[in-house]
Amino acid sequence: MDVSLAVVGATGAVGELILRVLVEQGFTPSKIKFLASEKSVGKTVTFRGDTHAVELLTPAAFEGVQIVLSSTPASVSKHYAPIAVKAGAIVVDNSSAWRMDPDCPLVVPEVNPEELHHARKGIVANPNCVAIPLTVALKPLSNLSPLRRVIVSTYQSSSGKGATGLTDFNAQLTAYAAGTAVPEPTAHRAQLAGNVITLDWTLDDNGYTEEENKVVNETRKILGTPTLGVSATCVRVPVRIAHCESVNVEFERPVTVAEAKAALAEAPGVVLMDEFAGDFPQPLHAAGTDHTYVGRVRLDPSNPNALNLWVVADNLRKGAATNAVQCAVELVRRGIVSPR
Amino acid sequence: MDVSLAVVGATGAVGELILRVLVEQGFTPSKIKFLASEKSVGKTVTFRGDTHAVELLTPAAFEGVQIVLSSTPASVSKHYAPIAVKAGAIVVDNSSAWRMDPDCPLVVPEVNPEELHHARKGIVANPNCVAIPLTVALKPLSNLSPLRRVIVSTYQSSSGKGATGLTDFNAQLTAYAAGTAVPEPTAHRAQLAGNVITLDWTLDDNGYTEEENKVVNETRKILGTPTLGVSATCVRVPVRIAHCESVNVEFERPVTVAEAKAALAEAPGVVLMDEFAGDFPQPLHAAGTDHTYVGRVRLDPSNPNALNLWVVADNLRKGAATNAVQCAVELVRRGIVSPR
Repeated sequence: MDVSLAVVGATGAVGELILRVLVEQGFTPSKIKFLASEKSVGKTVTFRGDTHAVELLTPAAFEGVQIVLSSTPASVSKHYAPIAVKAGAIVVDNSSAWRMDPDCPLVVPEVNPEELHHARKGIVANPNCVAIPLTVALKPLSNLSPLRRVIVSTYQSSSGKGATGLTDFNAQLTAYAAGTAVPEPTAHRAQLAGNVITLDWTLDDNGYTEEENKVVNETRKILGTPTLGVSATCVRVPVRIAHCESVNVEFERPVTVAEAKAALAEAPGVVLMDEFAGDFPQPLHAAGTDHTYVGRVRLDPSNPNALNLWVVADNLRKGAATNAVQCAVELVRRGIVSPR
Repeated sequence: MDVSLAVVGATGAVGELILRVLVEQGFTPSKIKFLASEKSVGKTVTFRGDTHAVELLTPAAFEGVQIVLSSTPASVSKHYAPIAVKAGAIVVDNSSAWRMDPDCPLVVPEVNPEELHHARKGIVANPNCVAIPLTVALKPLSNLSPLRRVIVSTYQSSSGKGATGLTDFNAQLTAYAAGTAVPEPTAHRAQLAGNVITLDWTLDDNGYTEEENKVVNETRKILGTPTLGVSATCVRVPVRIAHCESVNVEFERPVTVAEAKAALAEAPGVVLMDEFAGDFPQPLHAAGTDHTYVGRVRLDPSNPNALNLWVVADNLRKGAATNAVQCAVELVRRGIVSPR
């Protein structure tokens, strides 16, 4: 495809995965640049079987680039995304820097792809790894009845803290399995091996973590329901890849399990699992895939208008890299970016 | 103390822990018998530093026994508890056999100790390991305002499946940590190492597991609120000991965080943790203790009458052995059983 792409943060965990997902999704740009910060220059990345040198992220590097897929810390994105836009690119940004900016759409292609047309700053924000699968599962349900309230408790994997999270967790795990002294955590807030951590994120003054606030605010924005009641408890569990979510959703009117299952079975991006056949979404199965797995759909006995469900997705793929690549594909498909 | 005790299922994980907790709680009966099924006869147990032979569980074994602390499968309890009662004993039973029997009180000593006076069948039921800490945390809150609805998602440890669960998990964990092939599960429903399992219990026709139904029904019975709305999602996580619970509680009227924290700080059995001091309940800290740890108390932004909290307790201790021993202590303290 005659589109010019730049992958910023190409040597990071999500950046490397973006390169793999681009190939898997058949999005093969005619030109592609691999950009990273100074400390990664000299490194190489692999794309379509070839080894490429990583270039330094500078303003000049964006010349002629049409789409930027960026996975950097928010502070870097704040600085460089506007520079890329000025050079003529549209930026799909994985950081939290632009997500709540009213001029930047927050897009999950299965949920609100039409928002891609309203990137007034030239920046499309890629949502949080919990909000993406949550909205993929809620959108088809919201077509049955408007949503009134969503209560979510998460079971998030170590890789949500990036490559350093996994390195930390793996070192702890080896000791925990062997029954020897577990080393002090280096990335996670506390020991994760054999443990569960609810403060693995910065705490706000209201007693909520930064992650919980993201889930609340981004879910509302993606679904286009700014006043939807959302309550989140974000929790890290000792799993390498894929996040789980226990979701209680209250509707404006009663929705039956049969209606909900029929809507989910048809929904883009969703794999509905049948508990009566012994199937249920699991991190082990979701890891390495691009789907949002939904199961355990059942009536809430405490509220006639509510259902419970269980949602699992690979946080690095659908929760990050895959969603960003899908946004890029959709930008071209919708003619927002035109092949030359 | 001149009380005669029998511990049934003395060689099991909970039975052995009961022997340890009896000593820790200073409940030292003048006579004690250690009973178990045929396959455990010949084994020994340790109590107060001495080794004791295990006796065969037979009807005659209950002669002269005043309190039976029983930890057997429900089927065994169905048969033997009435026999023990006929022999003159009061039975504190850890199985699920008698929990929903209207003539058997379901007791958490911090919550409803007065129910011990109403053991019309001579049997006191010890509740499920999730319901115990949940009600310990909810009771002081229910004194502030009647409860309207409770939504709980659990993070339950491998040891909830007993010693065979832990053996299975440990074997899996060694392989998972090493990156080698993980052996097929032998006790858990699926691989637990590096994974999260929501169907680790039998599924009912309504899409709920047996465990989820226990949490709903037992929470209502312990709190004495048979129509309280309770919704449960029970989940197994790769942790050895201690269960966590993400709890959303809706009251009849708004309850402030300050009111809730003050009530919890005073509540028997509760250790309130301050997230602003960086503290939060963790399985690693709760394991081996008898407390119910409560933290992350905060207002639910989606409902002015609701709070979120995070509850953790050792499922083998407060969730089983400790609660049973506390019931025995209370039976004597209240004169329901009199020292001879």
